Amino acid sequence: MLSHEQNALLTHTGPSTPMGTLLRRYWVPILFSEQLPEPDCAPVRVKVLGEKLVAFRNSEGKPGLVDERCPHRNASMFFGRNEELGLRCVYHGWKFDLEGRCVDMPSEPPESNFRNKVRLTAYPCVERGGLVWAYMGPAEHRPAFPDLEWTALPASHRFATRHIQECNWFQALEGGYDISHLHHLHRGAANLKTHSTKFEFIRSDFGFIAGNGHDVPEGTRWLASVMLMPFHKLIGRHAGPDAPIGAHIWVPIDDENCMIYSIEYHPDRPLGETEMENSKNWNYIHAELIPGTDRAVRNRDNDYLIDRALQKSGASFTGLKGFGIQDCGIQETMGPVADRTRERLGKSDSIIIKLREGMLKLLDDFAAGEPLPGMEAAAYRVRSAVFTAREGEVFGELARSKVETNAQGQSVAVSA
Amino acid sequence: MLSHEQNALLTHTGPSTPMGTLLRRYWVPILFSEQLPEPDCAPVRVKVLGEKLVAFRNSEGKPGLVDERCPHRNASMFFGRNEELGLRCVYHGWKFDLEGRCVDMPSEPPESNFRNKVRLTAYPCVERGGLVWAYMGPAEHRPAFPDLEWTALPASHRFATRHIQECNWFQALEGGYDISHLHHLHRGAANLKTHSTKFEFIRSDFGFIAGNGHDVPEGTRWLASVMLMPFHKLIGRHAGPDAPIGAHIWVPIDDENCMIYSIEYHPDRPLGETEMENSKNWNYIHAELIPGTDRAVRNRDNDYLIDRALQKSGASFTGLKGFGIQDCGIQETMGPVADRTRERLGKSDSIIIKLREGMLKLLDDFAAGEPLPGMEAAAYRVRSAVFTAREGEVFGELARSKVETNAQGQSVAVSA
Amino acid sequence: MLSHEQNALLTHTGPSTPMGTLLRRYWVPILFSEQLPEPDCAPVRVKVLGEKLVAFRNSEGKPGLVDERCPHRNASMFFGRNEELGLRCVYHGWKFDLEGRCVDMPSEPPESNFRNKVRLTAYPCVERGGLVWAYMGPAEHRPAFPDLEWTALPASHRFATRHIQECNWFQALEGGYDISHLHHLHRGAANLKTHSTKFEFIRSDFGFIAGNGHDVPEGTRWLASVMLMPFHKLIGRHAGPDAPIGAHIWVPIDDENCMIYSIEYHPDRPLGETEMENSKNWNYIHAELIPGTDRAVRNRDNDYLIDRALQKSGASFTGLKGFGIQDCGIQETMGPVADRTRERLGKSDSIIIKLREGMLKLLDDFAAGEPLPGMEAAAYRVRSAVFTAREGEVFGELARSKVETNAQGQSVAVSA
Repeated sequence: MLSHEQNALLTHTGPSTPMGTLLRRYWVPILFSEQLPEPDCAPVRVKVLGEKLVAFRNSEGKPGLVDERCPHRNASMFFGRNEELGLRCVYHGWKFDLEGRCVDMPSEPPESNFRNKVRLTAYPCVERGGLVWAYMGPAEHRPAFPDLEWTALPASHRFATRHIQECNWFQALEGGYDISHLHHLHRGAANLKTHSTKFEFIRSDFGFIAGNGHDVPEGTRWLASVMLMPFHKLIGRHAGPDAPIGAHIWVPIDDENCMIYSIEYHPDRPLGETEMENSKNWNYIHAELIPGTDRAVRNRDNDYLIDRALQKSGASFTGLKGFGIQDCGIQETMGPVADRTRERLGKSDSIIIKLREGMLKLLDDFAAGEPLPGMEAAAYRVRSAVFTAREGEVFGELARSKVETNAQGQSVAVSA
Repeated sequence: MLSHEQNALLTHTGPSTPMGTLLRRYWVPILFSEQLPEPDCAPVRVKVLGEKLVAFRNSEGKPGLVDERCPHRNASMFFGRNEELGLRCVYHGWKFDLEGRCVDMPSEPPESNFRNKVRLTAYPCVERGGLVWAYMGPAEHRPAFPDLEWTALPASHRFATRHIQECNWFQALEGGYDISHLHHLHRGAANLKTHSTKFEFIRSDFGFIAGNGHDVPEGTRWLASVMLMPFHKLIGRHAGPDAPIGAHIWVPIDDENCMIYSIEYHPDRPLGETEMENSKNWNYIHAELIPGTDRAVRNRDNDYLIDRALQKSGASFTGLKGFGIQDCGIQETMGPVADRTRERLGKSDSIIIKLREGMLKLLDDFAAGEPLPGMEAAAYRVRSAVFTAREGEVFGELARSKVETNAQGQSVAVSA
Repeated sequence: MLSHEQNALLTHTGPSTPMGTLLRRYWVPILFSEQLPEPDCAPVRVKVLGEKLVAFRNSEGKPGLVDERCPHRNASMFFGRNEELGLRCVYHGWKFDLEGRCVDMPSEPPESNFRNKVRLTAYPCVERGGLVWAYMGPAEHRPAFPDLEWTALPASHRFATRHIQECNWFQALEGGYDISHLHHLHRGAANLKTHSTKFEFIRSDFGFIAGNGHDVPEGTRWLASVMLMPFHKLIGRHAGPDAPIGAHIWVPIDDENCMIYSIEYHPDRPLGETEMENSKNWNYIHAELIPGTDRAVRNRDNDYLIDRALQKSGASFTGLKGFGIQDCGIQETMGPVADRTRERLGKSDSIIIKLREGMLKLLDDFAAGEPLPGMEAAAYRVRSAVFTAREGEVFGELARSKVETNAQGQSVAVSA
């Protein structure tokens, strides 16, 4: 259980909040590159971290992200004309470039220099892994783009989707590190027949490592899941050493909605049609969308199309189709922002407890001026890992080393 | 007119409010038995007195009503599996029985006794008269189930429906004791050609008796309508001494919506098809529903399908079909919670005034520790009655006696 | 930029607000006469200046406007029976006449005089120019109906429509005096090839005159647009000296919605079918409506059906069809109530700045007890005008004279 204040610290992400300030020190995915299909194409509305913004691609093909409000009189830039190297507000014709400079102000007299005094809020963007990413923090703190393995692969090697989850981002993120629910919500999802009895959650140079362990004759068998700052997860290779790797990004839209990006990738080769069949039939982490939207076909307005007969039969524990929707559905029922002052947490919730403590401590350290993890691109060269620690070996050192080693081509399947 | 404070006292029914506390000392209907058609069937969402709950029927066929939130991490029990003698949350598999005990907590280590420390809020239920009823108050104050005549009859003897009224429960209940509107809103509804000139509203051991009287040569002719605590009305037998009897229950869903149960029953024999034709054509107290919902086809979003030509013709005073919808419609237009600080009440509103005073006094007495009416099952063995009081006879004693006598097989038609 | 307080002063129009009090000193259009097609027809809901009202036409054919709430117990008079010289509430049969007197109270005893103590709020109405107008202020301050040119013409000489704009009324009104946006939002709308360099905004006996001027060899060429209190605009004759004249009325529905009446009229002859083709194809100031509603087909829920290809092609600057929808659309994107504390105003916004100052000053003067402009009917006998002021001539005197002269049959086309 948390206090109201602690719950607010973890869940509020607006511009002036502690968590919002922290999140704005990292690169944030805002949409797929293909949503801006060509130079000077139509602008697209983007809401992220509670800010209403407009994305566009300029005449040189570079993506931009600007405030939806024109600084002149607050008309929406979404209706703007995407013209030669700038977006022009249609109300009075003010035109802004990618950096937010006003490059034309035809309503003012020719001799006026008023346009030099006006700026449209603009965030720098890059494109990596088929996504456009923005940096929304102070320029002097902008980090290099992180070495997330999948963002450097050719399109043939990855399959990425996104869908809106109608609850707070941290609620969704917590689910990603809650091993305990795999036995139930996704019964059959992972070959996890053994309960974790040991729990570790340590900070690293990329973020955190969550350790779920249980005793084996040789010592302790650990699953070390990486939490890459500020909202990335890499999933273990459930289906074997040559299987695709899964990844999630949980991006706040506002405090009551988040965008979940779900990626599968193979670091070494294109993904095969057969191997993706389960994914493309929406049985795995991806969600089928209402065409033209980011909303899932199975959503809270239709009780996620729960199949009670299937649930009853036991063929599905939940009657909900797909791991992605199972997570989304059950987490949304916890409320737009889960009330963490009303919970009864047990031993199996140890990782959830430690994750919250870890993030709250990080906010404290950040406020005290300490450097944030994940500021070095190379720190992101890791994968989740499974290993055995012998008696006397400490989880921390071993885990930090294993998640790095694992990324050096050493594949490992998650099993216990 | 009431003060804002008085209006709040009558209309707020949440867990910690005075009226909410009072209402929780009585049995509350939550849904029809047939909505839980068989043992271990799918759970059903119930909202009552502002609480979000889930009803289910266990493996032994017993109904249960529990908090929608799992105490663990607040996931919805609505998506739960209704398994062998318990409802299991699908997030982490915690299973609770009818009494709210956690009977299985598979996420915790086998040696853990944590499950014994956790309770799911659960309310005891019974089934009577085709409905499931719950008691949501303190266990030590649970009364016997009241001897409401119609709840003891075979299904063949009753016809019951329910629909949502989109306003506060007390607004709907007031309408039930407002004789004056029958002359207008339901013109032709009751053969009431004479205005009431005398008004009484007295407390009894089951609740209250509302008396509307007018002079006749022999003395005063009274209609004594019973208000059975906390929200039951029995209507007089309009259509003659062998006609079915009508009843209403006004149950708060939350403070801006209530569920109206409308029942017709014959105490001595099955209801006939012909005699119910008017009811089943939605011309009487029942409302036609949008299939699969509790919402009326004629609702505020479509102006209750008012037929202006019919209203104009005079064939209907309102142009609204059915007494139930006439009540529902006009009462909803008074606002989600009628502002009783803005009214102009006349002599014909005497019963409304006395009803409010009576309920406010009851709340006072209850707060002072006095016993509530309606705690004895047998007190409910009454019916509304019509009788003549001769000069010198006091309404109170006579009315208390007549509503009891009337229930002992003595049928009487409401007429004046 | 304004302060929050100033923004509230201009935009809040409820009964007790300064602007609301001012607006209630003028005649306000509430609906088209044809919406009340015959004596004793069905009542119609009207929301204006934040008040929920009901309009009806009595047995003598006179229009009335009353509070939607019956003073008895707040039931809606919209469901009332429109009977012989009065509107009767269907709950208890209270009947009110056009003046709000209770002329029948059948629920009370015959000897009661209670009905004489009860009033339904009622506003006097007149019909002019195909519209019903109400006066919602104190009786002792009621002005004569203004001599708005188009309201005195036969139906053949005018074409009037209305549509809801989903933002504050003042936002819409500002747009009407913002000459600068014509060059952009309505590119091609007016033959305005020259930027204004001089700006005047002066008070007159009907309201204000906005002057946009630029240098010509003879002196300054001025467009003097009239703002007739409190929300009327007369547009110049764009298409030539014999073209129809356009007019707008921006009426607050509530503080986040306004009703825009758009009128075209010819003072001297019927409008021709060919000449109105552009208007009736929704390319000019009128908006195509969703049938049976006042909502535009092109609205914010569908991004005003923006045609990005058309916008891209340059054939339309906005891709939005019709000047009316271009205004409506872009102004709605500024928010339900534009935040005027966040703006960057330039020289071309001079009229906007002066308009706000003018209205704020008027509110001040009104509060200080000074008389309001527009209280004399004859003051409204003006039209917008274009004229040249020679060196030394002051805009004010000249403009006041020209807008009057122009109305005396002297037609003039707006061009620069």
